[in-house]
Amino acid sequence: MVDFIADYYAKIESYPVLTQVQPNYLRSRLPSTAPYLPEPLQTIFHDISAHVIPGITHWLSPNFFAFFPATVSTAAFLGEMLCTCFNAVGFNWLASPAATELEMVVMDWLAHMLKLPASFMFSSGAAGGVGGGGGVIQNTTSEAIFVTLVAARDRKLEALRTNDVKKLVVYSSDQTHSTFTKASRLAGICPSNVRSIPTSRDTDFALSPELLRKVVEADVESGLVPLYLCLTVGTTSTTAVDPLEPLAHVANDYNMWVHVDAAYGGSACICPEFRHYLNGVERVDSLSLSPHKWLLSYLDCCCLWVKRSDLLVNALSTNPEYLRNQPSESDSVVDYKDWQLGTGRRFKSLRLWLVLRSYGVANIQSHIRSDVRMARMLEGFVKSDLRFEVVVPRKFALVCFRLKSFGRAEPSYVDSLNRKLLEWVNSTGRAYMSHTVVGGVYMLRFAVGATLTEERHVVAAWQLIKDGADAVLKVKGV
Amino acid sequence: MVDFIADYYAKIESYPVLTQVQPNYLRSRLPSTAPYLPEPLQTIFHDISAHVIPGITHWLSPNFFAFFPATVSTAAFLGEMLCTCFNAVGFNWLASPAATELEMVVMDWLAHMLKLPASFMFSSGAAGGVGGGGGVIQNTTSEAIFVTLVAARDRKLEALRTNDVKKLVVYSSDQTHSTFTKASRLAGICPSNVRSIPTSRDTDFALSPELLRKVVEADVESGLVPLYLCLTVGTTSTTAVDPLEPLAHVANDYNMWVHVDAAYGGSACICPEFRHYLNGVERVDSLSLSPHKWLLSYLDCCCLWVKRSDLLVNALSTNPEYLRNQPSESDSVVDYKDWQLGTGRRFKSLRLWLVLRSYGVANIQSHIRSDVRMARMLEGFVKSDLRFEVVVPRKFALVCFRLKSFGRAEPSYVDSLNRKLLEWVNSTGRAYMSHTVVGGVYMLRFAVGATLTEERHVVAAWQLIKDGADAVLKVKGV
Repeated sequence: MVDFIADYYAKIESYPVLTQVQPNYLRSRLPSTAPYLPEPLQTIFHDISAHVIPGITHWLSPNFFAFFPATVSTAAFLGEMLCTCFNAVGFNWLASPAATELEMVVMDWLAHMLKLPASFMFSSGAAGGVGGGGGVIQNTTSEAIFVTLVAARDRKLEALRTNDVKKLVVYSSDQTHSTFTKASRLAGICPSNVRSIPTSRDTDFALSPELLRKVVEADVESGLVPLYLCLTVGTTSTTAVDPLEPLAHVANDYNMWVHVDAAYGGSACICPEFRHYLNGVERVDSLSLSPHKWLLSYLDCCCLWVKRSDLLVNALSTNPEYLRNQPSESDSVVDYKDWQLGTGRRFKSLRLWLVLRSYGVANIQSHIRSDVRMARMLEGFVKSDLRFEVVVPRKFALVCFRLKSFGRAEPSYVDSLNRKLLEWVNSTGRAYMSHTVVGGVYMLRFAVGATLTEERHVVAAWQLIKDGADAVLKVKGV
Repeated sequence: MVDFIADYYAKIESYPVLTQVQPNYLRSRLPSTAPYLPEPLQTIFHDISAHVIPGITHWLSPNFFAFFPATVSTAAFLGEMLCTCFNAVGFNWLASPAATELEMVVMDWLAHMLKLPASFMFSSGAAGGVGGGGGVIQNTTSEAIFVTLVAARDRKLEALRTNDVKKLVVYSSDQTHSTFTKASRLAGICPSNVRSIPTSRDTDFALSPELLRKVVEADVESGLVPLYLCLTVGTTSTTAVDPLEPLAHVANDYNMWVHVDAAYGGSACICPEFRHYLNGVERVDSLSLSPHKWLLSYLDCCCLWVKRSDLLVNALSTNPEYLRNQPSESDSVVDYKDWQLGTGRRFKSLRLWLVLRSYGVANIQSHIRSDVRMARMLEGFVKSDLRFEVVVPRKFALVCFRLKSFGRAEPSYVDSLNRKLLEWVNSTGRAYMSHTVVGGVYMLRFAVGATLTEERHVVAAWQLIKDGADAVLKVKGV
């Protein structure tokens, strides 16, 4: 298996980055029922090579520039193997004290790296941090947002002495990840009370504190109750950053829970030159960041810090007889099942612990800087070619750009040119980019960050993009 | 790392099964911040051996008989390594077609093994199964229950043309896993509308259809709306089985969504002699089963089947511009992000696929039967010792037993004897059992199923239990 994996990584550049299979390609190639008798591993490996790999979009390819990267590392791989090896089920402290306590240690380490206020750390609290600030590993940002939203909801309903969620309103910008709307629906917030506040190119698509205040004031005047504000450090479309300090100030005035989704951009904040994006974090209630996006960890790993874990526990705890035990009853330990949706949980902190120790903070900062440098290089390439424009100023390692209109064409015509260019590039299988539409503008997204990406891959991808532009503009006769 | 893991498994019997560390044991042993410079792997391995392993409760020990087992296998380990290797993010079909389609194939395989009706399979549906029946891998039963509950809630609210959840009522027995109450709270169901219907020893703690009908009728008369019924095949406390057929009949009369939580017991139903526990499954809307509990898979792996995936998609879909793509727009593919809470997801079907192929259905059935045989053996031991009684008839591989009262003692005194016995056994570190209280009776739970457990371990554990009984009864002077 180790050989097979080594072979996959050795060959990864030879596979088309974006798979070229058609829907339902696999069903006809595999039997419709499981075998009654065992099959040799060789047969299975053959099928993986012949049928599975061709249908994979290779997220780890150095030529993967779509979405945000899914970073990996040898240390995280070893950590993942160890996690699998122990298969420890850490639903409460007693079920595996090491799983709970190592997670507490690692979450404090990462909080220190981000220079989060002590109020988000276990080490600041009394009683081993129980009930106060601290962190927990969730599977995804969706869960981080959902569990904090439910904690906020239940606190507010208790304060209002009601079961009626219909008056509660939640806020974000129109650039916030769609999972926020989904989490709100799941938590029973009325769809008509989910405010998606418009942003514009003037503010680089960041949420405006003045506009937030206006919207909230109008809601309060109509008798509604502001509940939760979701801010983003590094939006999915363009890595826009909402200014935490003034926005949290507005939210604090209305006793809202403020969550910061720093899934992608937060990782960069371990470097002093990016830390200012978290200014104001001391005014928020919770923050999440996904090391699987940029901190060399594997899926799925989303770190969530809260100031008041007692509010999570109030909303999420269960206490069945068969899980009762002396340490939990004495309130001297953290039972992570009460910080998350599920009961069972894996020993996930191992991989993050191995990454932080094996590379050290210095090397992880270098890794972030290297990706940013390569993105800056691509940005330079784009600016040097008059056919293109950078649409939104680059902040991290994502470049949003497009073929320009030269003032000659209808916007829809320019959009379709860029669509064609994206299709052209992706269909070669030699690089994979994605797209977005922001402020009505269709643009291409080029995200640097796959662990194996080197300068030469970015250079080659830019050559490919230029070739694509030649082809598209020639056909179109522009 | 492979050597380290092999060494762990070789030594696993030498570690105390239940860890003997005290709360906060780890913090003082590790630095409070991450290292700035890299540390050698040797140092990290040393810390794992010296500080992590002593704090682990060894779920994979052959002497682990607590809770339900967390089963593992070499094939699943290899599958897990492959999943990590590809790190494919299968949020929608295009992001990794192989990840989506292999999951569809494997879920159909397992559905066939369980003889589920075709209405739960992709292969029965039109358009590649889109919108009809099919399965999906969730992380935990909690999520499976939560997402189906939300789908049921949104369908009902739409039918009632209201946003008001306050009239909706959900039902289960008092033996249902506590995560059901939690999921109901999360979905915004009023706590006063979560019915936990009493069970008794007369029905081996199964939910009574007659009682369910009475409770539902009373609710309807009060103007409430029945929403969701959660049934269990193999409850956590005693592996009680709710009779699906008559209970679903009641629920069908009131247009409720019926979910079957077969997290533990469902696995046994791949053997013909246990399949009758699923009789009536054709009348339910969804079923979940956790292969990490008994089908040789690792955490976290909960299989969920639904008849109407369109209802999940209605409740859970998002469609941001940056994820738009032609296959998804054409409705010809499954986008699993719309079947679950989160967006990102791992290539989890690989491990289940490797397990099913490497062992074949025949060997997996043998594995289930072997565990049941060992549990039956322990049951025989218990029955042969007059000091003990089996409290609830054994159905699967869990034995619920206790020291008897001999009619001489107060119930609370007998409970305390059994508590002492459990403490005595677990504190030796040579075996780990758990307990429960059902129908007011405190009892010990002995669950056979750790992958490494052989007859000799069960025999040794029984000797230990007898020694414990000698010690406890002697001290107590009974």
